[in-house]
Amino acid sequence: MKGIKKIAIVGVGFMGGSLARAVLKKFPRVSLWGYARSKKSLTRLRKARVIKKLDLSIERVVKDADLIVLALPVRKIMEYFKVISPFLKKGAIIIDLGSSKSKIQKAANSSLPKSVKFIGCHPLCGSEKKGVEFSKPELYNDSFCLITSSSKSKASQTIKKLWESLGAKVIFINAQTHDKILSSISHLPHILSFSLSKHIPDSYLKFAPASLKDLTRISASPASVWTDIFLTNKKNIIKDIKGFIKILKTYQASLELGSKTQLRKLILKANAKHKKLSK
Amino acid sequence: MKGIKKIAIVGVGFMGGSLARAVLKKFPRVSLWGYARSKKSLTRLRKARVIKKLDLSIERVVKDADLIVLALPVRKIMEYFKVISPFLKKGAIIIDLGSSKSKIQKAANSSLPKSVKFIGCHPLCGSEKKGVEFSKPELYNDSFCLITSSSKSKASQTIKKLWESLGAKVIFINAQTHDKILSSISHLPHILSFSLSKHIPDSYLKFAPASLKDLTRISASPASVWTDIFLTNKKNIIKDIKGFIKILKTYQASLELGSKTQLRKLILKANAKHKKLSK
Repeated sequence: MKGIKKIAIVGVGFMGGSLARAVLKKFPRVSLWGYARSKKSLTRLRKARVIKKLDLSIERVVKDADLIVLALPVRKIMEYFKVISPFLKKGAIIIDLGSSKSKIQKAANSSLPKSVKFIGCHPLCGSEKKGVEFSKPELYNDSFCLITSSSKSKASQTIKKLWESLGAKVIFINAQTHDKILSSISHLPHILSFSLSKHIPDSYLKFAPASLKDLTRISASPASVWTDIFLTNKKNIIKDIKGFIKILKTYQASLELGSKTQLRKLILKANAKHKKLSK
Repeated sequence: MKGIKKIAIVGVGFMGGSLARAVLKKFPRVSLWGYARSKKSLTRLRKARVIKKLDLSIERVVKDADLIVLALPVRKIMEYFKVISPFLKKGAIIIDLGSSKSKIQKAANSSLPKSVKFIGCHPLCGSEKKGVEFSKPELYNDSFCLITSSSKSKASQTIKKLWESLGAKVIFINAQTHDKILSSISHLPHILSFSLSKHIPDSYLKFAPASLKDLTRISASPASVWTDIFLTNKKNIIKDIKGFIKILKTYQASLELGSKTQLRKLILKANAKHKKLSK
């Protein structure tokens, strides 16, 4: 990679671990460092054998790095902007992989020194699973990666090429639009899945059909990640919850009326949307 | 199968076709008949090569049958009780595969002659796919089949053995309890999936992550099947929609408050429920 000799990964979990593995596979000569926030975490990361250069000192991990990846929950990303700031070399590129972007962008603007470049990234390939043990080098292949910084800077072109070299399709989009879209296609769906799990009485669980298992799969998603996403995108999510309740009430009204015609119309429209979705 | 020499399948689609294939595999000497409601349907069924004895006359299909399977949408099942009544032989067993049961049970009681036995069945292994072309002989293997008639009659024991011989686990349950459970684990989830598909703007669809695809998979389910299910179980479903909206509003309230603690609690509870669900 042009100009990228040392990469520091802060947050070697499912996403960060997968990125480390993908990068090492594609660029075996890059110097890849991973930060371990505790001795316990160091032991775990050593066992996982994803990154060789592991260190408990954030300073040693990020200093001299040309690229720092913050693969952390959203609030931690914002905290770590401050933590890493004193140690960053001039011209370093910082990226994150967070699922909400406006607040992160603001925090980056106010916390990071002017001598570095922040490029917000969101690869659309998460998992309800957590931890480096589930990481896989092919995670980003054939996925979308949304970049929420301007496409014009040299740094964003470098990052675009990095994602593309790992098989991702890059789309530039502003942070506000990103958060609106993600609220609709991911954040609301997670709330629906969590709520559905909550709704089903324990004694019914043994009858769960495959469809219910599909709908509740992401209700296993970790609270540590999702409380942050929800709180940093709450305006959009509240709007989406309200909109969704409105749709549920059209079903309720059609049922109360006993209107086959209305229900049929609603279902046929959903069928048509599903067709577009599965294209 | 003891006492079952001729089986008539009315509704040779995904469920009925799969049952035909499973039965023919397990009991190759049984005389299996399929009803074709139109010439067009006859041509299609001939092409599918699932059942050899196909006939446009419902009389010829059901007369002398020891077992008649109504594998139709719920309202059609209720209609066909009347259609087949004049032709049923004494002692014949009639089963259905419908997803709501109370209304069907009532219709069976009022429409079928006293000389036959109706046993309500609901194998929990549907699909969003429709049509005999998708049928598969292993569909019922390792699935639950709920039987909503009393377990005491000879006929229900015969039907229990039939399902078990195809690999299904049979549970006897009354129709009212069945409908309450199914509203929660299947009917509400379908409404959520239809509603979610409706909610996502077209221009966002290209970004759909795998999680959204899982949640909207069953929004491809056919209106012909689901309007009937919804309308024949509407009291339970309305109650479930209302309960679900309440849960959504707890998320909305936690977001409005910006309460990390509350959101964390909600998500951890959903996580715990998911663990039970995936056991």
